[in-house]
Amino acid sequence: MIEVRNQPPAVDYGRVFAQAIDRLHAEGRYRVFIDILRNKGAFPNARCFAGHNGPKPITVWCSNDYLAMGQHPKVIAAMEEALHDVGAGSGGTRNIGGNTHYHVDLEAELADLHGKEAALLFTSGYVSNEATLSTLAKVLPGCVVFSDELNHASMIAGIRNSGCEKRVFRHNDLAHLESLLAAEDASVPKLIAFESVYSMDGDVAPIHAICDLADKYNALTYLDEVHAVGMYGARGGGISERDEAAHRLTIIEGTLGKAFGVMGGYIAADQTIVDVIRSYAPGFIFTTSLSPVLVAGVLASVRHLKASSIERDGQQAAAARLKAMFEDAGLPVMATTTHIVPLMVGDPVRAKRISDILLAEYGVYVQPINYPTVPRGTERLRFTPGPAHDEGMMRDLTAALVEIWGRLEMRAAA
Amino acid sequence: MIEVRNQPPAVDYGRVFAQAIDRLHAEGRYRVFIDILRNKGAFPNARCFAGHNGPKPITVWCSNDYLAMGQHPKVIAAMEEALHDVGAGSGGTRNIGGNTHYHVDLEAELADLHGKEAALLFTSGYVSNEATLSTLAKVLPGCVVFSDELNHASMIAGIRNSGCEKRVFRHNDLAHLESLLAAEDASVPKLIAFESVYSMDGDVAPIHAICDLADKYNALTYLDEVHAVGMYGARGGGISERDEAAHRLTIIEGTLGKAFGVMGGYIAADQTIVDVIRSYAPGFIFTTSLSPVLVAGVLASVRHLKASSIERDGQQAAAARLKAMFEDAGLPVMATTTHIVPLMVGDPVRAKRISDILLAEYGVYVQPINYPTVPRGTERLRFTPGPAHDEGMMRDLTAALVEIWGRLEMRAAA
Repeated sequence: MIEVRNQPPAVDYGRVFAQAIDRLHAEGRYRVFIDILRNKGAFPNARCFAGHNGPKPITVWCSNDYLAMGQHPKVIAAMEEALHDVGAGSGGTRNIGGNTHYHVDLEAELADLHGKEAALLFTSGYVSNEATLSTLAKVLPGCVVFSDELNHASMIAGIRNSGCEKRVFRHNDLAHLESLLAAEDASVPKLIAFESVYSMDGDVAPIHAICDLADKYNALTYLDEVHAVGMYGARGGGISERDEAAHRLTIIEGTLGKAFGVMGGYIAADQTIVDVIRSYAPGFIFTTSLSPVLVAGVLASVRHLKASSIERDGQQAAAARLKAMFEDAGLPVMATTTHIVPLMVGDPVRAKRISDILLAEYGVYVQPINYPTVPRGTERLRFTPGPAHDEGMMRDLTAALVEIWGRLEMRAAA
Repeated sequence: MIEVRNQPPAVDYGRVFAQAIDRLHAEGRYRVFIDILRNKGAFPNARCFAGHNGPKPITVWCSNDYLAMGQHPKVIAAMEEALHDVGAGSGGTRNIGGNTHYHVDLEAELADLHGKEAALLFTSGYVSNEATLSTLAKVLPGCVVFSDELNHASMIAGIRNSGCEKRVFRHNDLAHLESLLAAEDASVPKLIAFESVYSMDGDVAPIHAICDLADKYNALTYLDEVHAVGMYGARGGGISERDEAAHRLTIIEGTLGKAFGVMGGYIAADQTIVDVIRSYAPGFIFTTSLSPVLVAGVLASVRHLKASSIERDGQQAAAARLKAMFEDAGLPVMATTTHIVPLMVGDPVRAKRISDILLAEYGVYVQPINYPTVPRGTERLRFTPGPAHDEGMMRDLTAALVEIWGRLEMRAAA
């Protein structure tokens, strides 16, 4: 090994990196990942491995496997069958050896779910947003993207990476969106990007009204339904199915890792648009395709939730029950119209402290949500009750929170 | 539904999208995905679903599951166990409910594989490159990235998305790299990003010499080992292990979807750097973590390949044998020092035609490689023989290629 140093190192990389970490500690938002294993057949029960001797039983209150489809017998059986039939991974990109019959079938199933001509799978919801938005805005020269201010990080990344012009409209604010649309020339390609269910606040976009504006100003629409697919609509097609608006949207994007219980992401749109993204998006082209084992599991999950509403109904009932209990106990539950149950704390250190006490003393696992996932000053605890969280668990949780709120001398909700 | 149109649509979106697809057809590089299912326990055999009645048996010659670990009994057993123990998906991001004990164990295993303090998992190799490079260059103010001209699309995306300055050096050209490094001020943070095995040409980077330059000019180094991990080195640590250079590299990046046979990506580095990426990279933070089923499979695969070299040796022998047969037959095999066996065609239409004939008439599946995966004019067929491709299969393949080369009146290699 030859080492030649003809000048003292001018950049102290170690110091720069250490300072980046110090900033997180100083703001109280350094993240510690809780090390768990969920118990199949016994969700929301899990084992926690951190900070004590041996695995400790806990109850998970913050999973995005909203309907517990990750343990559904049909999903498990389909994955086991695929594992034994074709093996672990796909072995290649979609173009080079990694296009299995499962992928083809699932894309047809997802296109049908949203009433679109075609669908396209990605390795994650994040990648589907990033790859699609960054490519779409590049294919349309001079495109301006109109983006809701609370859009997910992956949509923001896609829009930024496209290099196009962006106009941010105030959250769900139709008048503001219209003023921005009206300010652009008719010859400018336009794309409105928004979500149906905003996962940290639990509110819902006015899809029809946004589509009216898109019609009026000749804009394309891109709807992120990751927290809604499987959860809303008679077949789990999301808020756009519930509101009968799917046919008005240019592109619907969803995830396979939340209500469908597995992993991956997708878009559904007309054949030409899917073909454009398939052909031009680096994030789709240059990556090993989803494992056929995962795809087989998702196929079973999507098909089941198209036919069964028991899981959706149970989840909505659980969410309503928990919200009512929190309200009755005077806890600062945020007003939501969906299945998300957030408690506002407003401080990252205190949110982490409550979470730590819940885990250490009550065996309750709920992660504190801090910046950059939510704006600073709106740190919160976010509960996702599912059909398997029973009333006794909810009573215990509410009592624990009331005790901790009193111990930390925090003001209850007005 | 209200539809208001106060002006004729000035932008014809359908036409723009259709033209984008027409350009691909005109250049002969419109991609058709071959619809297959591999047969576990019988790789490289598979079933093909396109263009005929019912599944047709084929031999796959273009999989990146180089060592057939995707069908290894230990991998399958580990995935089955995890599926039944914890279920299908992780249910959340690493920070919010998706940090399972499997993830923690695999990161320790991968850190050990490369002799680094820590490792970090991503949903894919693409995401690991994009997320790490884009974040690293942002955390180091004024950073300049020195990038090999043949770097993978995911590295290029990460560098571009960081918004930092980039200097592209000629492929594996040390003099050019040094001239670019020397042109920058000592106070400028520098990062050299390169690959060990370049997958489309099959050549290898001079790692020690690049590290010498990094030492001399106080630059960090980022090595993509996706086509080498599991494949080279006594424990499968890649070219950096084989060349005893791992300790000199700042960050080593790898995939879990090629030689390890499953899906996912990772980086290995010192604890502080991993902590920085873990804390600041949107592509890591805002995405559902890898399914624990996949992680369990990778754990088994990595552990097996740390102890066993039979698969590596078999694969190298197969590659050498196929290269020799192609050369003896006068086929234009490109000179490579690795396991990759590319045949140069130099034209996208002809490359696709050869591939189509092989599939239709010989039951041989090898995908044509065209732009943007390789530069225009260097379109090729890329064969990846594995330990399970026997000599009879190779003789049949060689004879088929010789016949097609003659039929299409293509010049044989000089």
